[in-house]
Amino acid sequence: MTDLILALDVKEKERALAVASACAPHLDAIKVGYPLVLASGLAIARELDPLGIPLIADFKVADIPATNRLICEEVFAAGFEGVIAHGFTGSDAVQACVETAHEHGGKCYIVAEMSHPGAIEFIQVVAERIALLAIQCDADGIIAPATRPERIGKLRAIVGSKLIYAPGVGTQGGEMEKVAPLVDGVIVGRTIYEAPDPAAAARTLAIIRR
Amino acid sequence: MTDLILALDVKEKERALAVASACAPHLDAIKVGYPLVLASGLAIARELDPLGIPLIADFKVADIPATNRLICEEVFAAGFEGVIAHGFTGSDAVQACVETAHEHGGKCYIVAEMSHPGAIEFIQVVAERIALLAIQCDADGIIAPATRPERIGKLRAIVGSKLIYAPGVGTQGGEMEKVAPLVDGVIVGRTIYEAPDPAAAARTLAIIRR
Repeated sequence: MTDLILALDVKEKERALAVASACAPHLDAIKVGYPLVLASGLAIARELDPLGIPLIADFKVADIPATNRLICEEVFAAGFEGVIAHGFTGSDAVQACVETAHEHGGKCYIVAEMSHPGAIEFIQVVAERIALLAIQCDADGIIAPATRPERIGKLRAIVGSKLIYAPGVGTQGGEMEKVAPLVDGVIVGRTIYEAPDPAAAARTLAIIRR
Repeated sequence: MTDLILALDVKEKERALAVASACAPHLDAIKVGYPLVLASGLAIARELDPLGIPLIADFKVADIPATNRLICEEVFAAGFEGVIAHGFTGSDAVQACVETAHEHGGKCYIVAEMSHPGAIEFIQVVAERIALLAIQCDADGIIAPATRPERIGKLRAIVGSKLIYAPGVGTQGGEMEKVAPLVDGVIVGRTIYEAPDPAAAARTLAIIRR
């Protein structure tokens, strides 16, 4: 079954913890990004830990290799199980993230293509090459846009059985019914955490993705 | 005169504050990245504030527009004067960072090309287009590699009088004497903070860049 991953892009820590706790029974992973971490600190990972759900740091790491390594070391020391890094920065930068993840028993996912309109300007044209780079660097999977399901097929042909996680379902326009069969995990943010009843929204999405 | 900018990529807060304080008389700005912020929190900006030196958050922001906005709001609320964002994410993502910076009276610098070897794989071939995008989006300047001074000339032709800041001097191989005349600011990290006497290293670099 396709994983349901909550993008917990909520800045207020108490609300983030409340949403995560309420939705937990329907989730396979929680993705935490910089807005929450900058507001609450990396210690948010320890506060989410009792939910027993894998935590992915969506930091879209995109620095030089030495700095990427330092960032990833902080991520895994804080208790995350996975990290998301950009591939656009090239093989040495990707390798630094993958190696650091694996040294800590964690996973590293590489952004092959993003979900927003601007991603067609520079990223989409090299997305297949980035996906190939991710495989060559032994990454555990790639990130591909739920907003462009036709692109996921092209990327699947490159990554084979490696994981594909797809953000952009819901508010950004991606449709769960179309995307879920194509990928290993669907990432949903605002459609869950901005719903009047986040737990009910997560439950509904968990049923649809089956 | 070309600015001397310290890349304060030191993870331990006390050491970071000590290095910054010792070097302050020779610096025009301090660049703070994620390794220090993840270890110490965004509040590091308030602790560096008494030095009276402009602080630039080198977060290489590279997310979708809505998330870029949230990240930049955190940056300027914390007291930074500038933020560094990636340009390969496209015009909407860049615009979100520039607008948020300017709404807070801050500055936004766009990475046109990076200094590490992997940057030649995907970034260098579109660096001129990214520099043009930065100008079109009203960014305050670009980041260009001190490790490849021949590239800086090409990017200067595009950005005109907009600021160019160049990382990669010292440990990464860039030479101060060659790079300083070409740019508005030279960014130096390890050559200063890993020196036996960081203040002396900063003073020497400050003299050379004249």
